[in-house]
Amino acid sequence: MKAVVSVTLKPGVLDPQGKAIAQALHNLGFSSVTDVRVGKRITVQTTETDPAAAHAQAEEMARKLLANTVIESFQVEIVP
Amino acid sequence: MKAVVSVTLKPGVLDPQGKAIAQALHNLGFSSVTDVRVGKRITVQTTETDPAAAHAQAEEMARKLLANTVIESFQVEIVP
Repeated sequence: MKAVVSVTLKPGVLDPQGKAIAQALHNLGFSSVTDVRVGKRITVQTTETDPAAAHAQAEEMARKLLANTVIESFQVEIVP
Repeated sequence: MKAVVSVTLKPGVLDPQGKAIAQALHNLGFSSVTDVRVGKRITVQTTETDPAAAHAQAEEMARKLLANTVIESFQVEIVP
């Protein structure tokens, strides 16, 4: 079973990488861009076969290692 | 309109960051983990109001700047 953990910066946390990308997009002519935020997308492949158990396990992984919950929030999605 | 661009390494491209995370998860007791791949999740906020146009624009951004198409593939999702 595959779990996709999306880790994003919480609102209000400064994102200099996103700001740099927004500036670069403006320079490339994409003038409609107002804001860019950069997060991580971590795909975890496990031998777990129960979707509910895989989801719970991926949430625990995110809390313990994948996300810094002080400044980041995360979202878990299970892909069969 | 908000576009979410998911950038992931193509299959076969080595992912040392993913390998390190897999090892760390094993050390934390998540023994069911077989593989971890790390990608980027870039959220682009634009003033574009047409979903089709926003999608096309985000794909162009990904090709031109956000993804290195030699080693990475990307996927665009439009969120209203």
